[in-house]
Amino acid sequence: MEQSRPLDALNAARNKRVIVELKNGRQYVGTLKAFDIHINLVIEKTEEKVDGELKRKLDTVFIRGDTITLVTPA
Amino acid sequence: MEQSRPLDALNAARNKRVIVELKNGRQYVGTLKAFDIHINLVIEKTEEKVDGELKRKLDTVFIRGDTITLVTPA
Amino acid sequence: MEQSRPLDALNAARNKRVIVELKNGRQYVGTLKAFDIHINLVIEKTEEKVDGELKRKLDTVFIRGDTITLVTPA
Amino acid sequence: MEQSRPLDALNAARNKRVIVELKNGRQYVGTLKAFDIHINLVIEKTEEKVDGELKRKLDTVFIRGDTITLVTPA
Amino acid sequence: MEQSRPLDALNAARNKRVIVELKNGRQYVGTLKAFDIHINLVIEKTEEKVDGELKRKLDTVFIRGDTITLVTPA
Amino acid sequence: MEQSRPLDALNAARNKRVIVELKNGRQYVGTLKAFDIHINLVIEKTEEKVDGELKRKLDTVFIRGDTITLVTPA
Amino acid sequence: MEQSRPLDALNAARNKRVIVELKNGRQYVGTLKAFDIHINLVIEKTEEKVDGELKRKLDTVFIRGDTITLVTPA
Repeated sequence: MEQSRPLDALNAARNKRVIVELKNGRQYVGTLKAFDIHINLVIEKTEEKVDGELKRKLDTVFIRGDTITLVTPA
Repeated sequence: MEQSRPLDALNAARNKRVIVELKNGRQYVGTLKAFDIHINLVIEKTEEKVDGELKRKLDTVFIRGDTITLVTPA
Repeated sequence: MEQSRPLDALNAARNKRVIVELKNGRQYVGTLKAFDIHINLVIEKTEEKVDGELKRKLDTVFIRGDTITLVTPA
Repeated sequence: MEQSRPLDALNAARNKRVIVELKNGRQYVGTLKAFDIHINLVIEKTEEKVDGELKRKLDTVFIRGDTITLVTPA
Repeated sequence: MEQSRPLDALNAARNKRVIVELKNGRQYVGTLKAFDIHINLVIEKTEEKVDGELKRKLDTVFIRGDTITLVTPA
Repeated sequence: MEQSRPLDALNAARNKRVIVELKNGRQYVGTLKAFDIHINLVIEKTEEKVDGELKRKLDTVFIRGDTITLVTPA
Repeated sequence: MEQSRPLDALNAARNKRVIVELKNGRQYVGTLKAFDIHINLVIEKTEEKVDGELKRKLDTVFIRGDTITLVTPA
């Protein structure tokens, strides 16, 4: 039986809405467009939230992988 | 006598419930679906806990390995 | 269908105004001139902002990649 | 005269009780079952202590190497 | 059209006055003499500033790259 | 004239008493038995000190290199 | 015209008095005996200073490179 790898989960989330959480506590909700092995991500139609509260609306956002704690479907 | 390696323990936990603890003190309890050599993990049917208290229910969660301190069966 | 990579988003932003946010909370708004795989960046005609307030005007700024959290069009 | 390497000390501790101390101040006392060059460890029959006080009993625990400060026989 | 790389900006600043800012908030103003791919730098005729205030005059200073946030012409 | 390398100093300290200081401020005084290029160390007959005060006596201690700031003869 | 590299500055300081400053704010003044590409250093006849005040006299000190912010002639 073939075993899945973590990046498969990111691949399955392409073009879908995801929540990206950073080490600094901020949350970015957007449509996942691209990722690489460092977990650098690009999301679009992005909402930035701090403590669950909408702070900014951004379109395309490049997020550096080493600042990310988790990614989950929105 | 063959010696086990740390990733063998993660492999033995596939499809089982695990507790994943992060450097920021948060705890994620879910079913381990995938991991890699960086200890990037994917868990499913996830409960996020802070100070032992349930904060959120999430389904699939990708956790970046460098934010993890430990993984143990739930 | 070809899949985009995160650095494609930076490439598309060349010679355009971008917001670069750092782990220390500072924000640099400038014209993206160069980047590499470490996400080291060079921006020009730069405004440094702290808490949304303009602190300094700088021209060319080299920013070390590991200090960056995100890059987004201005 | 042959010179020993640091991992020899971990190898000598296999199947013995060890104390593992983390950068966050927590202490894990367990039986060392596996380790690798990143100092990722697996211990069993684990006691988690904070300020010397028993917090939790866990069985198998995978600890990510970069969170460890030291390992010493219990 | 050829695309510039971030280190080209440092190269263009050789033998010119630069401001180097560190993760600890300190600022070093000096003449850039050398750099490498880790962004290790050597500057000369250096002024160290904390909160914009001159603290020390130093001549040659080797700065380890991973402590740097940005470099900009003085 | 041949130039010495930093690890030569550690090699010269083998089987001698050394002070190992960590990023968390703790000090370990012991007999240096082994080290590697990551500066992972093994010391024996170890005394742990915090603010110069003896906290614990330990025998063999494996210390992960990335937690170390300095090593000096005791 | 040949361009100098950062390690040339350290090489020029061999057997001379240098100030080494660490991320934790401590300063070590000693005679530079050895360094490598990680900026691991060995200094001799060392004075440790905190806030400019002499704390300890040490002879040979091995300093792990990743804890260093800068090196400058004393």
